[in-house]
Amino acid sequence: MYTVREIADALGAEAAGAVDLTITEAAEPQDAGPDALAMAMSPKYAEALSAGTARVALVWEGADWQGMGLDAAIFVVRPRLAMGGVTRMLDPGQRETPGIHPSAVIDPTAVIEQNVTIGPLAVVGPNAVIGAGSLIGAHCFIGADVTIGVDANLREMVSIGARVTIGDRFRAQPGARVAADGFSYVTAETSGVENARKTMGDQGETETQPWLRIHSLGSVRIGNDVEIGANCTIDNGTIRDTVIGNGTKLDNQVHIGHNCRIGDDCLLCGQTGLSGSVDVGNNVVLGGQCGVADNLFIGDRVIAGGGTKILSNVPAGRVVMGYPAVKMDTHTEMYKAQRRLPRLMRDLDALKKAVFK
Amino acid sequence: MYTVREIADALGAEAAGAVDLTITEAAEPQDAGPDALAMAMSPKYAEALSAGTARVALVWEGADWQGMGLDAAIFVVRPRLAMGGVTRMLDPGQRETPGIHPSAVIDPTAVIEQNVTIGPLAVVGPNAVIGAGSLIGAHCFIGADVTIGVDANLREMVSIGARVTIGDRFRAQPGARVAADGFSYVTAETSGVENARKTMGDQGETETQPWLRIHSLGSVRIGNDVEIGANCTIDNGTIRDTVIGNGTKLDNQVHIGHNCRIGDDCLLCGQTGLSGSVDVGNNVVLGGQCGVADNLFIGDRVIAGGGTKILSNVPAGRVVMGYPAVKMDTHTEMYKAQRRLPRLMRDLDALKKAVFK
Amino acid sequence: MYTVREIADALGAEAAGAVDLTITEAAEPQDAGPDALAMAMSPKYAEALSAGTARVALVWEGADWQGMGLDAAIFVVRPRLAMGGVTRMLDPGQRETPGIHPSAVIDPTAVIEQNVTIGPLAVVGPNAVIGAGSLIGAHCFIGADVTIGVDANLREMVSIGARVTIGDRFRAQPGARVAADGFSYVTAETSGVENARKTMGDQGETETQPWLRIHSLGSVRIGNDVEIGANCTIDNGTIRDTVIGNGTKLDNQVHIGHNCRIGDDCLLCGQTGLSGSVDVGNNVVLGGQCGVADNLFIGDRVIAGGGTKILSNVPAGRVVMGYPAVKMDTHTEMYKAQRRLPRLMRDLDALKKAVFK
Repeated sequence: MYTVREIADALGAEAAGAVDLTITEAAEPQDAGPDALAMAMSPKYAEALSAGTARVALVWEGADWQGMGLDAAIFVVRPRLAMGGVTRMLDPGQRETPGIHPSAVIDPTAVIEQNVTIGPLAVVGPNAVIGAGSLIGAHCFIGADVTIGVDANLREMVSIGARVTIGDRFRAQPGARVAADGFSYVTAETSGVENARKTMGDQGETETQPWLRIHSLGSVRIGNDVEIGANCTIDNGTIRDTVIGNGTKLDNQVHIGHNCRIGDDCLLCGQTGLSGSVDVGNNVVLGGQCGVADNLFIGDRVIAGGGTKILSNVPAGRVVMGYPAVKMDTHTEMYKAQRRLPRLMRDLDALKKAVFK
Repeated sequence: MYTVREIADALGAEAAGAVDLTITEAAEPQDAGPDALAMAMSPKYAEALSAGTARVALVWEGADWQGMGLDAAIFVVRPRLAMGGVTRMLDPGQRETPGIHPSAVIDPTAVIEQNVTIGPLAVVGPNAVIGAGSLIGAHCFIGADVTIGVDANLREMVSIGARVTIGDRFRAQPGARVAADGFSYVTAETSGVENARKTMGDQGETETQPWLRIHSLGSVRIGNDVEIGANCTIDNGTIRDTVIGNGTKLDNQVHIGHNCRIGDDCLLCGQTGLSGSVDVGNNVVLGGQCGVADNLFIGDRVIAGGGTKILSNVPAGRVVMGYPAVKMDTHTEMYKAQRRLPRLMRDLDALKKAVFK
Repeated sequence: MYTVREIADALGAEAAGAVDLTITEAAEPQDAGPDALAMAMSPKYAEALSAGTARVALVWEGADWQGMGLDAAIFVVRPRLAMGGVTRMLDPGQRETPGIHPSAVIDPTAVIEQNVTIGPLAVVGPNAVIGAGSLIGAHCFIGADVTIGVDANLREMVSIGARVTIGDRFRAQPGARVAADGFSYVTAETSGVENARKTMGDQGETETQPWLRIHSLGSVRIGNDVEIGANCTIDNGTIRDTVIGNGTKLDNQVHIGHNCRIGDDCLLCGQTGLSGSVDVGNNVVLGGQCGVADNLFIGDRVIAGGGTKILSNVPAGRVVMGYPAVKMDTHTEMYKAQRRLPRLMRDLDALKKAVFK
């Protein structure tokens, strides 16, 4: 519960009207009751205010808030940024009971720092360290020798395998998996796959052979302020650790193969997958369902549109799209040409008739 | 265990022969023993009857069941529909022990209605309501203030975050995740991604910036008769709830982003993903591994073939395919033209030689 | 801890120098300390030896190991094969406490063979059989009537539904799901989807209808030496079992639909999905994010590049790529032609001008 003034101050925004009104929740304009802060940050949304009973709203600069029937207003310049501030203040969380639930199974050698909450039926393994202020959800598994920094927030059923190190303010959504074994196999002799990759399609003369396992000796190292989505999977490195840099965020069902190195402040959207040993720079954004083949390099500030499959290195700063990925403008040009292909075929037939009779 | 007559009656089908024989299971014709009902609903499958020892089979109308060596037969018109009826009758389930397992951790404020089974090591949070006749599997997590209707069937390790409301007859497969936080971030100033989206490829002059979190204040609202697959993920809405309509079914590993609204009686096949704020109508069918970009609208009765990536709105009734999605017949035409491209190039070269010498 | 000689012997490799030195771990050359075995199997990696303090390394045949400053060396011919042997020897595992944890919930009718470890808060259902030497991780769920062979290794939170049978040496990564119900529905009357599939795009005149469930009576049958990745999902068969052959490996987030039959020694890479009733031969390799439409046949030794969507049968031995999948060399040819399309359009315009004036 905050006053209008408190919210405006937190956002660094101007407010007008009855700034001492108290707010208990945020709502879309049409759903907003008298204690809600309505999100009416553009004229399009503000129209719906009349369908609700909001007294206070976030509005755009210069909006005629009194004409909208409001008692107070907060003026925002960058709506999504304001959304960040407001939702952080009003987040009701998951209502976990503070403290360590008696049903949790915690190894006596684990180090649980102060103000840690551990939910029912969680498991914390030997020598694990849980940083101060952290919240470990119900049914979580924290493996042997794991270190988690301060103020972590793990939802239910997150699992962290042995020897993982994680920085501060880590967030993980339900079912996220850190430190699965890498998917790495080898045949005793050269396999058809090795040949096909070299020749782009020819398996050559090879015997079929069973797959021998390459175990993962490495673990996973995660920086500060990292968030990983529900049912994500991050694999251990083979010899060294798989690495995820500071401030990087993974959406649900993202897959990170063994030995990948991801830089700082990247966004990997839903269901994107990185094969093994991919090297990703800083500030990279990969849209949903992107894929990256193994052993590739993706430079700083690369952006890939949704569904892009990256099959070769991408230099820094490039915006790419398609399967296989090409520069966004090349993709647009190729796509337009494809759409015109049927007409082009007819033109060509007419030409052939005219020229060759 | 049912008699042939009971099964036929349940299917609304005709039966012939020894209709008092009892059936304990269904089987494919070649695997069927004397107490099994063989699925021989087309001549192709019926051939395999001689490899098994079935005495009773589901057959097509007019089939010569006696010539197949059967003692009894049930005649079906729509084989898959009959399969639905038969498998519902003979489903052996997971053999859960009825009642509430003593190892489950149930908050004293939770409301557990009558005839509810709760498996070992499940967690039910404060003020959660579990409807009558529901089955909550082992290791499930039901968060605070969740409401689940009657006759739910949750397999093991399903998690439902705080404040979710779910209708009657809900089914969830192992590892399904409802109410993860949405994947929503913002930078303090305009980012390169925002520019690239506007210009279709140009990031402009922007500083690299960290990502600020937009929290999810909304939850998830699910209708009646909804089923969600193993390891699915459904995100909370930002301000309002993410919504899934009555009768909609999600296959394994489907991802539903924050704020999506899905209508009634949709089918979303395996590994399909919806970004944030997608609006899907009723009776929509998306094949496996489809993707939908954010903020799009998909009309009623749209069908998308497997692997389709939808990057713009799709009007009602349309059948689409491809990356990016186009009408199915356009896709077929474009694809045929692509296959002929290499020959077209040779034709063009010949023409150039003839014309320009 | 092994001596250099012991490691060389296990690899069947030659060693030179101080072969009695003991090794406690493997490391990349730049990270290697004095007790580590450095992985310097090519000149490129060997350069980094000077940045570490390794005394022993795996090197290529004929390498000047003394010139690299090493005290001992092991000579390998096939680096990845040697990696398999070394990592198997030095794998530290997850440090599980041997024996059955008192918090595990084990049905009295379950059969736990000798030398089995069961982690905290695992559940083993009625009549389940856990083979000798197996390791069942924390929070695992083993359903009723499941049989698991000897020497299984299940990481945390793996779930195996009722009646599954699994061979020896099974490995499953965290969150893997075996035996979810199949995704199979039918409408009472012919649906628009059925029409659209037949006509390649025309839904015809159909009523919208609810989806009726086809239950899964079958289970899942898995051979020996199978490994499945984190958050994989494998569905039950409808009437018979879904089958996975000996030696087959699934990467993280792979999805196997109901009734699929996968042969021996296949590799299915990350996020690949098979719809229902797909028949896959032996020694098939599907790259990451591949998809296979339902009811298809994929012959022995087929290889599909990453992102390939297989929409029709693939004969044995073929190497395919693309959406839809075509032969790899056809794909390369089509792709090259597409890249040249914009120029081709300009050429055609010039020709039209010249010919038709």
